[in-house]
Parts: sequence; structure tokens; C-alpha cells
Amino acid sequence: MGLIVQKFGGTSVGSIERIQNVANRVIQEAQRGNQVVVVVSAMGKSTDELVNLATQLTNTPSKREMDMLLTTGEQVSIALLSIALQAKGYDAVSLTGWQAGIKTEAIHGNARIVEIETDTLHSYLNNGKIVIVAGFQGITSEFNITTLGRGGSDTTAVALAAALRADKCDIYTDVTGVFTTDPRYVKSARKLQSVSYDEMLELANLGAGVLHPRAVEFAKNYAVPLEVRSSLELETGTRIEEEVSMENNLIVRGIAFEDGVTRVTIVGLKNGLHSLSTIFTTLANHGINVDIIIQSMTSQDETNISFSIHTTDLDETLTVLQSNQEKLGFHSIQSESSLAKVSIVGSGMISNPGVAAEMFEVLANNEIQVKMVSTSEIKVSTVVEERFMVKAVEALHEAFKLDELVTHSV
Amino acid sequence: MGLIVQKFGGTSVGSIERIQNVANRVIQEAQRGNQVVVVVSAMGKSTDELVNLATQLTNTPSKREMDMLLTTGEQVSIALLSIALQAKGYDAVSLTGWQAGIKTEAIHGNARIVEIETDTLHSYLNNGKIVIVAGFQGITSEFNITTLGRGGSDTTAVALAAALRADKCDIYTDVTGVFTTDPRYVKSARKLQSVSYDEMLELANLGAGVLHPRAVEFAKNYAVPLEVRSSLELETGTRIEEEVSMENNLIVRGIAFEDGVTRVTIVGLKNGLHSLSTIFTTLANHGINVDIIIQSMTSQDETNISFSIHTTDLDETLTVLQSNQEKLGFHSIQSESSLAKVSIVGSGMISNPGVAAEMFEVLANNEIQVKMVSTSEIKVSTVVEERFMVKAVEALHEAFKLDELVTHSV
Repeated sequence: MGLIVQKFGGTSVGSIERIQNVANRVIQEAQRGNQVVVVVSAMGKSTDELVNLATQLTNTPSKREMDMLLTTGEQVSIALLSIALQAKGYDAVSLTGWQAGIKTEAIHGNARIVEIETDTLHSYLNNGKIVIVAGFQGITSEFNITTLGRGGSDTTAVALAAALRADKCDIYTDVTGVFTTDPRYVKSARKLQSVSYDEMLELANLGAGVLHPRAVEFAKNYAVPLEVRSSLELETGTRIEEEVSMENNLIVRGIAFEDGVTRVTIVGLKNGLHSLSTIFTTLANHGINVDIIIQSMTSQDETNISFSIHTTDLDETLTVLQSNQEKLGFHSIQSESSLAKVSIVGSGMISNPGVAAEMFEVLANNEIQVKMVSTSEIKVSTVVEERFMVKAVEALHEAFKLDELVTHSV
Repeated sequence: MGLIVQKFGGTSVGSIERIQNVANRVIQEAQRGNQVVVVVSAMGKSTDELVNLATQLTNTPSKREMDMLLTTGEQVSIALLSIALQAKGYDAVSLTGWQAGIKTEAIHGNARIVEIETDTLHSYLNNGKIVIVAGFQGITSEFNITTLGRGGSDTTAVALAAALRADKCDIYTDVTGVFTTDPRYVKSARKLQSVSYDEMLELANLGAGVLHPRAVEFAKNYAVPLEVRSSLELETGTRIEEEVSMENNLIVRGIAFEDGVTRVTIVGLKNGLHSLSTIFTTLANHGINVDIIIQSMTSQDETNISFSIHTTDLDETLTVLQSNQEKLGFHSIQSESSLAKVSIVGSGMISNPGVAAEMFEVLANNEIQVKMVSTSEIKVSTVVEERFMVKAVEALHEAFKLDELVTHSV
């Protein structure tokens, strides 16, 4: 007999019919003889509706009171799922975050879990109950209700799995797993049987919302075996675990990409010691997220800096830089929009130094110019023209033999 | 500086505009230099909506899970009221039932408060905060969330007032106070300045929903001074307290009435020792609420029993009695519907033995036949034909000089 943690997101519990469906998935696991802990999010749009009520009162509600307000959404879900399971003849009990022993920092709206007291959970599990826990929420040492911020229910599920030493944590979502690339763009995309935690982090923007990076980090730190799978389809999903079998000896395991990228170049920046930090601190203070950064020295005194941003941030970036031109000391700013980032991801790269070169060759053979490059141990990112994005992904997907991947059923 | 507990029902917090209005009433009290604890119910129809979700899953949801589900309604209200007060520049904090230290029996759906730990409440009040507490809810010693049953938010307010030794507990509602009789039927009805707890209990069915009897009992036991007042009008309401000034030397303080009454008579009941208890235990087991009971001995061996019920319970009453005819041993059952109960209430009756006689004379002078009579120390109830109900109330209201009552403004 094992212990399984299952997590169902807001879409999966978005209606009474879907809650019935979730109950059936839970029962399948219980019928295999497993102890089951289920983490659920708020129903569909209910969180948005609560936020809307609060913003009718003020645009700046206190975070403590917003946590008080929003945590009711998950509380509704756990009660309804528990009622659904009981109606099907299964012994279930619902627990809020605090009842489940989830202790967090005293930070409202974005708290981190500091400890989970598992006595209550174990007690219910040992009494043969299916335990339904409200995701996204916890409690401070002062007994204030907190929320865990974005991806919170994923984090709740992983943290519970870690604390309970669960055999597995299944993240149920609206896709059947993690793919070699986005199947909406590339027909030959294949579902991966397994990826490592680090690969999952690098692939995070493939199928955004599948699994929150914070939850992946947590799972990595506590070696919690995850599986991303569909709440509607019965097929096996994608396992996320430390030791990944070298599936067909894949060096590259996935191809991530995003459009709407702009490259900004600051020309003739004075070569001061603090130039770089001043620029990027200034941008960060304005909430502008900078991705790839490249510096090229042009003379003894001056340098050029290029970085990529979301195109939606371009106007503010230009305003911020120009208003600080005197302080920063540069000649001019150039920018190029309608770009895209295409990355190959795979932990096999660490022992295969030629992978980046192979990527560049594939792109060159397809007459795609590389505008920027950035590398990490398990990822090579390139910036190309947006109109070549899908062509680049398809070419790389084929070149690294991802379309030959056979998905095994378990 | 005093400590005031204010309670606002679901209608008073039924929309964002109404929550703003409640916030203003709270601020008025705070501006007088008082410490304020506010108890609120769930917004308008939100409880009904939650019940509807659960009943889509099953008609018999577990009471524990219903408590988990329904308590979210008040949690939404407290967060929104706290946000509204903060937006108006006041320091407020919301607390769920358990955060406010409200401990109950381990009975779901209808728990009684056993203790209130006031440390948290005092701590927030001493820090100058307006404390907003979720009505209707508490927690068991096993940390399960409970609800207090019907009238629960009234009880929460009174219990908090008792535990905090508040100077006053104001129950805000959609009427301006307690009236001598129902102003919708009798134009000359007057608002009472004050009534005693016992009188309030006897008058409970006047303006049903003004104040739950359980809360009145609680207030009586702990001598909590109550005031029933309007959440929309600024005028003074009706005080409910032990020592009532003899307002205009009123012997009768109010006239209560209800229609839809049926009298059932069991004819020729065998005069056994357990006949009475068997009948009324059987009816109680079927959830049939019996009001007035009259027994008249007709012979040594047999007796007739009359009792009044709600007309809506008549069919089931007849079915239950007939299916037990052999066990109970009686000749026949008679019933008369389209009756009404009219009662005069006043603690002054205790020292005025002629009041019942005066009531019968008033009714006789108006050619209204009395079908049943029941008396208590502070109430005389009569059952009359439904078509004479309003006429009887008007005649009694005038005879006992309730229409001459002058309502003083404070």
C-alpha cells in the first residue's frame, strides 16, 4: 500500500460535473489500495470573482484581508469534493490549509511554507479516510491565514508529498504531460515519459501553467517524484524525477520557445565599474524582466550592452533608460522587435559539448540568423526573427530526433 | 470609553454598497470613542447558493462538510467589511470564528458555544483595531469547523458581548425595533422602547427573524443588554434588558399572532398512564411541532385531547395518529383548520390576575369565539377563527392601550 498525493487545478473542479469526475479519479487511486491525499484549487473563475468584489471597495486592499477572502475559494472546493466522495460511498474528510498543519512565513499573498505538522493528516489517513486539503493556503505562527502566491496549489501538493514521504505526487491538469515542444505549433511533438527537475524548470514556458517552477524546485529539493497527467484522459503522463533514464539516449529532451521578444542595445556605454548593475537595477525597480544579457567591449572606455525583454515592456524600458541617460552615460539606444527565443533543453548536454554548435548549424542550414545566444549547463537559447520561430523549432525538433521518440504506455 | 458589539445580518451586507453602509455605521460607533467588535453574516443569498451546489451532489451531504462549505460565506463578508473599513482609513482586522476563539460542542450544523477565549480579541482591541468576526461559526476541541444553526450570528454577537463584558450588543436588522404588534397588519402598532428578555422570547414570532430566541436566552443568562435597531434608519431601536421601566405602566406589552393553525382533537382516548406521552412522543419523532395542548376528562375511562399544530403538518399528523390507532386506543380524530393564535404578552401580568379575563371579555364583545386557551406567567394565548385574527389583534391592541404608547427618542 502506497501513499499518493493528487493535485487538481481550478479548471478540473470548475463545475459540479467536473468535481464528480475528479471524485472518480480519486476513487480509482483509492481502489488500488493506496492512501490518498487530494489537493484542490478554487473552482474555475471563483477567485477572480472574489478579487472583483474587493476591488469594488478599493484598488489597494490589504494583503491580509485578501488572503482571508481568497482562501474561501479552496475551502468551497474541498467541501464539495469531500461531499462528492461521500455520496459515492467513500470516507473522505476535508481540511483547510491550517487544519492540515501547513505553517508559512508571516507574509501575506506570497508566503512560503516553513513546516507541515502531519499529525492530523496521518491520523485521518490511518483511519482509512481520503483526505482533501485546500491548496494555496497556510497559516502563520500568529494564526493568520496566508496564501502561497502563484502556483500555490502545486506547491501545497509537493510540500505535502514531501512531508508525508508520499510515494508519488500526481499533478492533474488539462494536458496529458510534458512534450518535446508545443504540439499546437509542431505536429511531430511527442510526450516525454520523464524529465529531470532541472529540465522541467528550463521547459517551464512550454505549456505555461502545467506546473509552477516553485513547485518543481520544491520537488527537486525534497526528491518528490512527480507526474504531470491529464484529469480527463486515462493515459500515463510525464514523470519528473531526479534520475531520468536515457530515453533513446536523448541529448536534447525538449525545445522551448516564445515570441514577442525585443532586443535592446545600449550603444557607447561608459565603461564604469557600476554601469551594468546600475542599468539592470534601474530596470528591475520598474518591474521590467530582462532575459538574455550580452556585453561586447568595443573600446577601452566604452562598451555595448544588448539584452532581451518582452516586447510589451519596450516603451517603459526606453523611457526609463532615456530619463537616466545622463547618469548612465551612453550615446544611444537601438532596439529590434518581432524576435523570438528558441531554446534546446536537455541534461545530456553537460557531457556533449558539441550540442550548441550543432544547433547553430541546423539554424544556419535553414538560413535562420542567430541574433543573440545564451547558454547554461542544460540549455542553449538563441534569439531569431519571430517569422522563423516555428521553422527553427521544427528543424531542431527533427535534427535532435525528438520526433522519433516512442511514447511507451505504462 | 465603552466596548460595543454590533451585529449585521445577511441582508445588511448583501451588496458592496450595503457593506459600505455597514462600514459607516461601524465608524460612527468608533468615532464616539468606543471599542467595536462587529459580527457579520454571509452576504445575502450566498449561503443558499452554496447549499445549492452541495445538493447537486447529494441530498444528504455530511454535516461536517456542510459546515466547512457554509462557513466560507461569513469569511467572505468579514474580509470585505474589513477592506471597506481600511479603505475609509480605519484600522480593522477580520477573524474567523476559530480565530476569534469561539469554541463549540462537537455537533455539526447546530453546535452550541461552550467557551470563548478572548485573548486574541482583547489584544486586537487594545491595539486600537476594529475587530470583524464571522458569525454563525466556531470550532471544536478537535479543530473541526462548526456552525451554530439558525440565528447563529445573533448568538455569536451575544456570546461575544457576554465574554468581552461589552457595554452593549446592538443587533442591526431591517426593522427599527420591536413593535407592540405587527405594523403590517395593525396601523396603530407602536415601537417599544424596551422589553424584558422573557417578553422578547414570547414576542419572538412578531417580525420573525428580528432576533433569534436562542440569542435572547443567551443574553438573558448572561445579562447582556441588547438593542434591536435598523441598519438603515438612524433612530433608536428597542432595548432588551432585565429591568424594564414600567413604560406607561403597561401590563400588556405586545400582541403576537400567527395564522395557519389547526386544532386536532383525539376523541375517546383510553385513560392509560402513558397515553399522553405516547401521542406526543410519536408526533415529535415525526418532527411535528405541537403548540397548545388541552385535555378534558369525559369519563372515568376515556379522555379527549386537543392540540394545535401548523396546518401544513395536518396530513402527516393524521397519518401518524391513524397508523397508531390500535396502539394508542381512541375512537376518532377531529380537526378544524383556518384558525389563528392570538397572544397578549407582558411581564406585568404576573401581578395582575385579571388580565386573561379582560382579554376574553374584549374578544367576546367583538363576537370572536375562543376555541382554545393557554396561559403562562407572562402570556395568554387564544385560538380563534383565522378570519377574526386581525380584528382580535386590533381590539386587544386598543383595549390594552398599546396604541397610546408614546415612543421617546433618545
